[in-house]
Amino acid sequence: MSLLGAIEAGGTKFVCGVGTADGTVVERVSFPTTTPEETMANVFSFFADKDIEAIGVGSFGPIDPVKGSPTYGCITTTPKPHWSNYNIVKALEERFGVPIGFDTDVNGAALGEYTWGAAQGLDSCLYITIGTGVGAGAVVSGELIHGLSHPEMGHIYVRRHPEDRYEGTCPYHADCLEGLAAGPSLGKRWGVPGAELTPDHPAWEMEAYYLAQALMNYVLILSPQRIVMGGGVMKQEHLFPMIRTKLQELLAGYVHHPSLRENIDQFIVPPQLGDNAGLCGAIALAKLALAEK
Amino acid sequence: MSLLGAIEAGGTKFVCGVGTADGTVVERVSFPTTTPEETMANVFSFFADKDIEAIGVGSFGPIDPVKGSPTYGCITTTPKPHWSNYNIVKALEERFGVPIGFDTDVNGAALGEYTWGAAQGLDSCLYITIGTGVGAGAVVSGELIHGLSHPEMGHIYVRRHPEDRYEGTCPYHADCLEGLAAGPSLGKRWGVPGAELTPDHPAWEMEAYYLAQALMNYVLILSPQRIVMGGGVMKQEHLFPMIRTKLQELLAGYVHHPSLRENIDQFIVPPQLGDNAGLCGAIALAKLALAEK
Repeated sequence: MSLLGAIEAGGTKFVCGVGTADGTVVERVSFPTTTPEETMANVFSFFADKDIEAIGVGSFGPIDPVKGSPTYGCITTTPKPHWSNYNIVKALEERFGVPIGFDTDVNGAALGEYTWGAAQGLDSCLYITIGTGVGAGAVVSGELIHGLSHPEMGHIYVRRHPEDRYEGTCPYHADCLEGLAAGPSLGKRWGVPGAELTPDHPAWEMEAYYLAQALMNYVLILSPQRIVMGGGVMKQEHLFPMIRTKLQELLAGYVHHPSLRENIDQFIVPPQLGDNAGLCGAIALAKLALAEK
Repeated sequence: MSLLGAIEAGGTKFVCGVGTADGTVVERVSFPTTTPEETMANVFSFFADKDIEAIGVGSFGPIDPVKGSPTYGCITTTPKPHWSNYNIVKALEERFGVPIGFDTDVNGAALGEYTWGAAQGLDSCLYITIGTGVGAGAVVSGELIHGLSHPEMGHIYVRRHPEDRYEGTCPYHADCLEGLAAGPSLGKRWGVPGAELTPDHPAWEMEAYYLAQALMNYVLILSPQRIVMGGGVMKQEHLFPMIRTKLQELLAGYVHHPSLRENIDQFIVPPQLGDNAGLCGAIALAKLALAEK
């Protein structure tokens, strides 16, 4: 049986897998991200004996996902040594001669949750991950968002919490959303890792304030039918009700929709694909590339 | 020759017109928005002797533009007397029996500029108007954004300027973007209408700061290929270079693209459709409705 190949290309590790067109992962391996040559040798070796019809890549970024652009397929200006301007799509096409789907890791995850996960059956959704960084991807009218390049929703500007004295971790913007709300900022602001803070610690009210602000802007700009929140920080399940309440407070009844009132528990939800989210997203990208062939 | 009908349904006045499929307006009339009965009688009368294949409506809001929804076609929760829950699409369909396109005024204008104006030939664009209020619409991969409902981008949350002591005009959010940057807030903050403030007045640095923040978030969330800025406040042409510079400062080189560096003069531009922008947008909506028939 023909299978779809999937690559979750992370800055720390690569996960490769094969799956079926219904999103089932049948095999997976993982190895550290070193140089492109060494890492891709492992990728080539994994897929060498697999009968794959297409490969999807959900990649760390920034990348150029715009077809027709001279640098399409590249990981572009990453500070990660050796990977800047590496064209991963070209490398895979030359090796395997099958259609290659290529997008950001978060756009991939959004497509995965949209196709088989928490947003299945809808026309639009937003996926946001809050972990070492903050990233988000979105599906609008069934399509992933591209334009000038790809979204970088984790770096939006937010209003500072009146009691927050922390300067922020983002090397570009200091106190953008990622700079104030990603996992590392929790640890640096409060002196202990977020996972060690009790649910009644004031850290969480502040965290919910920043994330609800981001969600407010995503709702007002994109109008997604569902928002899926994942990543390490969202393992703190008590954040979900706090974020829902803060979002309602911030919107102040402006957008009239049951999803923002009585149905908000089904509007802001955790991911459903668990540890296979990245791979499922890449399978969805492979499936898309095959359909567009 | 068959023509397309266009309605710019505003809260103060209705503009009706007919045009050709290349966006040329051949006739237009305008009348005040009173009750739905009286206003629609004028609409019906204008189109009665026209040979129209479809009608497009760019409407004041909020509206329900989601096909299949029970309230599709309605102007929903407007405070404007008599118009709340009025189904303008149904009224037009029953009267004329032709396909009706229906969207927000700003989504219509975005589609108009995308089809015949400042964003012609691209795949995506954002149109923002800064006047009595702030509103924006966007085209992504050739499609207008819909989801839960329609975007309400004028009400995003922004960081306050450190020297701004004005509380904001928005009845829902006080100091959201519209509350701080729409025309009326200029007049209330500085004591004279914006049009009377000289180009070197500090009002404009503050205004550019708020609008550049909004553009930063739009760029990071939607990645549009061009941003078209219109409305009364943008008649102050000196705002364009100020906003471009502020946007570059805020992004701090994070998004690497010529459109955000050396080509920024072609990235943030005024509208090209002038006084016919609303009607051209509605013609574009009519054309879309005809194509989807």
